[in-house]
Formats: sequence, C-alpha cells, structure tokens
Amino acid sequence: MILRNWLAMVLLLSPAPRYTTALWPIPSSLSRGATAVKLSSVFDIHIDISSPPADLVAAVSRTRSRITTDRFQRLVIGRSTTDISSISSARTLTSLSLALHPGSLVRSIADETNQPITSRSEVYSLAITGDRPSAILIANSTLGLFRGLATFEQLWYDLNGTKYLLDGGIDIVDQPAFPYRGFSFDTSRNFYPVADILRTIDAMSWVKLSILYWHVIDSQSFPLHVEAYPELAEKGAYSAEEIYSQNDIRTIVQYANERGVDVVMELDSPGHTTAIGAAHPELIACAAKSPWASYASEPPAGQLRIASPATVEFAKTLFDSVASVLPSKMMSSGGDEVNLPCWEEDEETETDLAERNITIADALNDFVQAVQGVITSHGKTPFIKSDMVLTHNVPVVNDTVVVVWQTSEDAVSVAERNLRFIHQPSNYFYLDCGAGEWLGNDVLGNSWCDPFKTWQRAYSFDPLANLTEDQHHLVLGGQMPIWSEQSSPENLDPIIWPRLAVAAEVFWTGATLPDGSPRLGPNATSGRNALARLNELRYRLVDRGVSAIALQPKWCVLRPGECDLDS
Amino acid sequence: MILRNWLAMVLLLSPAPRYTTALWPIPSSLSRGATAVKLSSVFDIHIDISSPPADLVAAVSRTRSRITTDRFQRLVIGRSTTDISSISSARTLTSLSLALHPGSLVRSIADETNQPITSRSEVYSLAITGDRPSAILIANSTLGLFRGLATFEQLWYDLNGTKYLLDGGIDIVDQPAFPYRGFSFDTSRNFYPVADILRTIDAMSWVKLSILYWHVIDSQSFPLHVEAYPELAEKGAYSAEEIYSQNDIRTIVQYANERGVDVVMELDSPGHTTAIGAAHPELIACAAKSPWASYASEPPAGQLRIASPATVEFAKTLFDSVASVLPSKMMSSGGDEVNLPCWEEDEETETDLAERNITIADALNDFVQAVQGVITSHGKTPFIKSDMVLTHNVPVVNDTVVVVWQTSEDAVSVAERNLRFIHQPSNYFYLDCGAGEWLGNDVLGNSWCDPFKTWQRAYSFDPLANLTEDQHHLVLGGQMPIWSEQSSPENLDPIIWPRLAVAAEVFWTGATLPDGSPRLGPNATSGRNALARLNELRYRLVDRGVSAIALQPKWCVLRPGECDLDS
Repeated sequence: MILRNWLAMVLLLSPAPRYTTALWPIPSSLSRGATAVKLSSVFDIHIDISSPPADLVAAVSRTRSRITTDRFQRLVIGRSTTDISSISSARTLTSLSLALHPGSLVRSIADETNQPITSRSEVYSLAITGDRPSAILIANSTLGLFRGLATFEQLWYDLNGTKYLLDGGIDIVDQPAFPYRGFSFDTSRNFYPVADILRTIDAMSWVKLSILYWHVIDSQSFPLHVEAYPELAEKGAYSAEEIYSQNDIRTIVQYANERGVDVVMELDSPGHTTAIGAAHPELIACAAKSPWASYASEPPAGQLRIASPATVEFAKTLFDSVASVLPSKMMSSGGDEVNLPCWEEDEETETDLAERNITIADALNDFVQAVQGVITSHGKTPFIKSDMVLTHNVPVVNDTVVVVWQTSEDAVSVAERNLRFIHQPSNYFYLDCGAGEWLGNDVLGNSWCDPFKTWQRAYSFDPLANLTEDQHHLVLGGQMPIWSEQSSPENLDPIIWPRLAVAAEVFWTGATLPDGSPRLGPNATSGRNALARLNELRYRLVDRGVSAIALQPKWCVLRPGECDLDS
Repeated sequence: MILRNWLAMVLLLSPAPRYTTALWPIPSSLSRGATAVKLSSVFDIHIDISSPPADLVAAVSRTRSRITTDRFQRLVIGRSTTDISSISSARTLTSLSLALHPGSLVRSIADETNQPITSRSEVYSLAITGDRPSAILIANSTLGLFRGLATFEQLWYDLNGTKYLLDGGIDIVDQPAFPYRGFSFDTSRNFYPVADILRTIDAMSWVKLSILYWHVIDSQSFPLHVEAYPELAEKGAYSAEEIYSQNDIRTIVQYANERGVDVVMELDSPGHTTAIGAAHPELIACAAKSPWASYASEPPAGQLRIASPATVEFAKTLFDSVASVLPSKMMSSGGDEVNLPCWEEDEETETDLAERNITIADALNDFVQAVQGVITSHGKTPFIKSDMVLTHNVPVVNDTVVVVWQTSEDAVSVAERNLRFIHQPSNYFYLDCGAGEWLGNDVLGNSWCDPFKTWQRAYSFDPLANLTEDQHHLVLGGQMPIWSEQSSPENLDPIIWPRLAVAAEVFWTGATLPDGSPRLGPNATSGRNALARLNELRYRLVDRGVSAIALQPKWCVLRPGECDLDS
C-alpha cells in the first residue's frame, strides 16, 4: 500500500506526468492504476473460443514468444535499479484470456482483414486489474483480438528476464478513428526482397497499421509476375532475381492478412508504365523519348497507348489476371502524372484517335472506365490518384476511393465531388523527401518535395481539416509512402521507422487523446508525451530487429522534456 | 585482335565514354587499354620484400580473399551476357607482385600510418599490361602498397565466379592531393558498438580515407575508459555496455592503423563536457542549467570550470592519460561552442577569477595552452576548432591544425593567420543535416544546418577556393563528420555511405582528373562520370556488406547519363 501511494503521489506531483506504459498508437480510451504487475514464469495466453482460427492461434503464439524474447527496458535513468523494489512487491499475472463477445462470428484474422474496409471491427477491450491474476481481452472479431494483442505486447518492460509494468489497473477500450491506416511501398524504382517486405509488415502490425498499398510496378522496372503475361517481368524486371513470383505474392499477402494488414495493389496506369515496353514495345508511347522532362515526370518517359483498342484489351487482361490472385476488396489503377505531349506527339496514338474519331480525353475516360470495370467485376473497390479526378476530370465509379497525394489542400476538392478518399499528402507524409536530387548533373538540386518530412510535421496532420461535418464520412484514413528512387533494402528501416508509426497514431487515435485533450491544436499538451512515447516505440522496434533511427540523443530519451526547445 | 579493335572503336564512338574500371577516388594519373584480362584460377599476390611486415601480409591476404568473394557485377544492361565473349578471349593474369622502390624503408603499414601527416608516402604505381601475366605494384612504403591494393581490388568484375576487366593495359601512377582525408565520428550523442566502427574503418580504407577523427565524448555521454579517471565512463556513459574499454580502444586503433587509417582523438573541451560532471560535478559550470539555450548550443548545458586550477589539473591529467595510449602524432582538444554566460553566472568561476585576478579570456587562454602543452609533450600535433581561434582569439602553438567547421568561408581567415587547417565546413560536409529538428516540442523545426548535404554539394567543394598560392601548403585536407543526435548503429551505413566517399575523391584526386580536365568548374565534364563511378562504388560497398544507400533507381544506374536533368 505504501508503494501504491508513493507511486500515485509521484504520478500526481510530476509536472509532466510520464506514463510508464508508453503505448503507440495511444488507445482511444485508457485508464491506468498504480499497481506494479509482473508476468508469472508460467504466464500463458488462453483463447476462450471453441475451434479458434489457425492464424489467431499463431498470433497468440507470436505474442507469447515476443513477450519472452523482448529485452526492452524502461527508458529512465538508472532503470536497472529504479524498479527493483516495485518488481519484488508486484502482483503476478498468470494469464491473458481472449474471448469474443457473444454472437460474434468466428472468422480467421485474414478473413476479417479482407472484409470491406468500412465493415471491419477492430474494437477491443483489455483489462489488467490490480487484483485479478488474469487479464481479459475481448473483441467482436479475431481482428479486434489481434489489435488487442498488439497493445498487450507494448505494456511490458524487461528487467533481467522479468516482464513487468508499473501502472496495473489498466482498462482500455480501444478502436480506430479511421479504418484505413496505410503504408505505400514502391518496389519498382529499386527492388526489395520478400524478407524486407515481411519484416515491414510485422512492424506495421505492431502499431496497428491496416494497409500495405503496394506500388509494385512503375516505368523503371516491372518486378511482378503476372500469370497472363509472364513476359512483362521476364523482360521488364531488373533481373531474374528481382521478380515477385506467384508464390512470393501469395506469401506476402497471406503473411500480411494474418497480421491484420490488407494488401491493396496499385498497377499504376496509364502513366508510369514504361517498363511494360520491354516486353510489349507496341503498347508504349514515347518510350524513353528524349528529353524525358518533356514527356514524363521522371525518366524514362513512356505511357500506355490508351487510344489503341489493343492496349485497352491488354490492360483489362492485366488487371484481371492480377486481381484474380489478390483477396483484398480494394485495388488501385493509380493514374498520377499522365503527360499529354507524350500522346500528342505519338503517331500511333494520333492514328488511333483519328480512326475512332475521339479525343485523348475520351480515350483516357474509356481507359479508366475499362480498368475500373475489371476491378469492380472482381468485387473490389477501385482506387485512383487525385490528379486523375481533379486535373483530368475523369469520371469514376461511385464508390471509388481517391488517393489525395499532390497536396493536403486537394482533400477539400475531392470531398466537394462527394468522393471517398485517403490522405497521402506529399507536403506531410512523403518519407523520401529532403535527401537531395537523384537526377544526374543537377549539381546542387534538392528533392522536389523538400524539406524532409519530420515526424513532427506528419504528426501535425489533421485528417478532417477544412472539411464539413457531413464530409467526414468520406475520409477513410491515410497512408505514408516511400518512393524508392533513393531507397533500397539498405536504408528501408531507417528511412521509414519510426516515422511511419506517426500514420498509425494520426489515423487510429484521431482527434482526441484518452485524457480528453486534443491531439492537435493550441491546447494540445501532447507534443512532449508523443515524443516520449515515440522514442519508446523506436527502442522497442530496435529491440525486435527493426533498424529504426534515433530521434534524439539517448540523454534526451532518458529525460523527457529536458531537450525541449524551451526547457 | 578483332576484339581489341572492336572495343577500341566502341570506346571511341561512344558519345559519353564510360570507363569499365570505375575507380573511386580516381587516380591522379591513369591510362587504360582495351584488352580484356581475367584472373587465373590460381591467381596469387606476391610480396617481393624480404621479411615483409605482418600487417602487409595480412592486407594482401584480405585483398586476395575479397577478390574471390566479391560478387559485384558490371552495371550495364544485360551484363551477364554482354561480356561473355570478351571474357572467353581475355588474357589471363596469374599474379600481382608488390615491391618497394630500392632504398625504401620497410616499416609496417601501421608505423607508416602513424608518421607525421606531411611525411607519409602514399604514392604507388600499378601496371596491368595486356601482354604480361603478372601485374606490378610499386611504392615507396608499405602504406603506398596498401593504397595500391585498394585500387587493384576495385578493378574487377565478377561473372559466374570469373574476375575480369575489359580495359587491361592499365597504367596508374597515383598519389593524393592532400594527406588528410578524414571522417569525424561522434560516439557520444548515441553509442556505437566496436563492430560498427571497425566496419566503417574497412570501408574507409577501400576509398583511401586516411583519418578517423574520433569525437568520442561530449555533454551527453562519456563512453571512453580513461585509465587515470575510470569513474568518468563508469558514471558518465549511458550504461556499462556503452563504454569503449582500453582493449576496445587498442583494437580500434590497431585495426585502423593496419588499414592506413590514423586515429585522431578529440576530447572536446572546455565546452561539450557536461558528462564529466556525472563523476566530477565540481568540475562543471552551469551543469544542465535551465533554460539550456542560454548556456549551451544544445542540451544539456555544462562546461569545464576553466578558471579553477583544479579543473586545469584535471584536464591535463585527462589529456595525458588518453594521449599516452594513442600512437597517432595528432590529437584534438576541440574547443567549439564555448558559452560565456555559463561561466559568467557561475559563482565558483567568478570566485576563481577574482582570486586569480584574471578574466575569463585569460582563463580560456591558460586552459588551451595547458592542454596543448600536454598534447605536444606527447610528440603530437594539437588540433583545435576554428571558433576558438576566430571568435575567441585564443593563441595556439605554431603548428596547430585548425578544424574549420562553421562555414567554408572561415578557411580564408584561418589562412590569414598562417595556421594549418583541415576543411570540415558545415555548409558542405555535415552528413547529419536536413533530417529535421531533434529538440522536443519544436513542432515543425528543421535542422540547424539544413538542407541535407547531397553528394553533389560535397563534391562541388574546392579545397583551395579563395586561397592564395602561398597559402595552399596550409591545407592538410578535410573531413566529413557525422553528428549522432539522430544517428545510431541503425542508420550509420546509410547516412554516411556513399556520401563519405566524396571526401576521398575531393582530397585524394584534388583539382584535376587524370584526363587533364578540371574536377570542378564550368569546364568540368566529370559530373556524369562521377555519378556513374559513385554508383558503382555504392554497389561494391553493398556487395561487401556495407548498407550504402541507392543514389538513383537502378534503371538510371544501368544507363549513365539517361537520368540527367537535361537528357
């Protein structure tokens, strides 16, 4: 009792209360006590579900294993000694029990993850009361239980093999503010082996990210095996070793789905497709035409010859072949940065347009309609890039999701068209910005989206800014992308982590922190806590083998607030 | 003969001649032929020196091993097939012979590396003639031979285990433009295990960098075991696991010296020393005083109490203890960013000044004189940061080397004082810039030395800019630093490589490329070639286990010039 009072007093008196359980993303509702709790040496996790799905059993097994192998210690000065007395008098937790609310369907995590984005249930409640030997995790779905497991894993600190926390009496009821919390991954400019993608999915799942938006192909290389057109990868990939095989794709998608991550594949088109020309030069206009800057946003130039019926047929078969192997209810045809001079100066395109007596705008509409038709025919929601809608005014099917990317200000314009959308603003979320120019002989050039997008900048993003209340339902969430012109397996972890976790909190936690204070704005007191929690997440990631960068000197990490600008 | 003519023709007709041997740094004199050469399956390296030093034997052994294990392939489209016919008709090289010019001293590489910086001989000549089965490497010293081995290792491409080159008839006579080619490594803000330092030294040696300038301690932590004051690390390091032991230091220095890398240690003082206060609070003024911004350039505040005779004695013993275990003929007392209010508001300092009837400027002069005296008493050249000379006008011993860091423009001012110096300009060379603010609650802040210093920016640096010819001898070279506020083992390789290699070419190759063209300026045609060569170096580094970042999409790497801004 003395200990409890002392701890309570410390928590009350501390000018900048620092929670010992530094969760990320912070739950939507969270209360904490002051009872030290440690895991029993025979701690186990029970699933109170008859015939639990195999991927839930596997997830529980991974959680059990991680709780054992995590060596992450509390980030306070002298941590090895500070907590010893608390631990010795801590209550012992012997188990965690997982249950579904009565009447819930029992489906695999993967099945739940592939439900339509707006009908998934990720809500869960987790209670670790000070006086009961078992913690309780309850949800409406296995996906909700999986989210709860991710929270449970973040609660514990290690000291000489003992796993403990100091603020038992934890009561969490948690659900995401937005269902779409994503990472957009470009595997075309440079290639990433499957192992890098799987490691990234694991780390995504630890912070409850829900979508891997896979920008798999582009003008530089075509690393995707397509059953209908194997020659695309054979000739368009960088090498035979730099191709995602059918088996690779199945492995990645299944791995992701079992971890609550839906894989939304983008086949960017009709721009960003030059690599198709390696196998099918007849389909590409202005292929590698010089000067590239007149015909494309980056080298090499090249776009699908959308005015040609053969090209449209090719695209339909391409989308059909890829869509048929993907379980997601979403798929993207991209559509950013099409270049009109590329088509205007292409003789074949001019001939096709003349023969059909249509304009290039007509052809673009037909093309988009064709590929969206294939996507919807597979029961999937089509995604499209915002410039296709805002710049080219291409009509899209009603439930299309628009990827708002050029600037955050475009969200309002998309909302005014009553289209659903996700946020991917280059002025907040692009993980690759600020590392200088990658084009040759631009001696002192900066990157086009300078400066570097700091975690603070990303964290300051408000998903509902400038929208009316009746437009809020149009916002599905958002995602941070890595474009790989200057990235590769060698810097994947440090360039995305821990910044990518910011998207998790922006779109899971939403506008309000569990203490009722706003996450953003002049009254937000969260900046300091957010940094302390993000530092902790970073050290947890490193402990688990993800090479997340340091956000501060360790001196500052150990002393939250003391490296603040004004402290 | 037909093959030779064909190759020669290709080389002549190619609009942007691309050398097949993409050396970095490019030798000061280089001629190439057009004879394909491959290494014999029994290829060996002979040392034609009686009783060769053990570290030369070891270096040869490593080269032999790397030539076998390197799997780096030529970066051209379809490289696996393009070179097959050339290889099948290639001449076979059966050996490389190493020899010293008659009359040369036979000393170990480590001994040569620890000679005074201006009296080392790194010159070597390397000939691989088309018609002789043995290549010849000759130098005046084992250090020169070591530099030649680094060149030899860069010549070869792999195809299915065969090592070959296409432009045999190679004749290289090479020597550095500047002897000091360094990397400054901050191991205080965040700690790096010994393995990370050794890997970095290896990679440094591959591009002929000659100095590891070890910024080992700072205000945040004191990770250095000091024989005279073991308590400094015991209490000032982040943890017991984050200390460089005596043995670690010996290992690092020896490893570096055997690889032609001299270790210049900086004990930054009297600023940047707060961590000393963990063990000796009586030595530190304004320790962690708030607001830190009034008393230091970054948190925590704290400086040595230079007016106190006890502190000066402490510093002398500290420098003496550290100097005595380091073989280098150079050592730095740092001296950047001292803060006058820290001392002005420190009661003990005011008392000391009053008792001794001196000013703080006098005390600073005395302090610098004292530590420089210890450094010179060990036969070492003292280094000092430029603001100590330019801002504080502290008198320094005659042969002091000034580290010019605040801006490249300061070099002229230092030269005007007739002091020798090295370039470390924050506006060209700082590897950590551009990743945003690391201070807490500076919501949208950028890094103080924005923007990111691209390789192009660093490459554009001219070491002799604005200097008169009779000042040229004052330039020893330069170094690129990594400051570790936002760096750690997790991003070490990607943050420094391949950019650090730019320092190698800037200070080894100097003003003129081997074809006689200027490396810089309006007539420089090197931009494209430099990028192609740097891309190649990057892939070689990755092949050898160094996680250097991609500078471009692989599509561009395989097509030099085609991703130029204007192509």
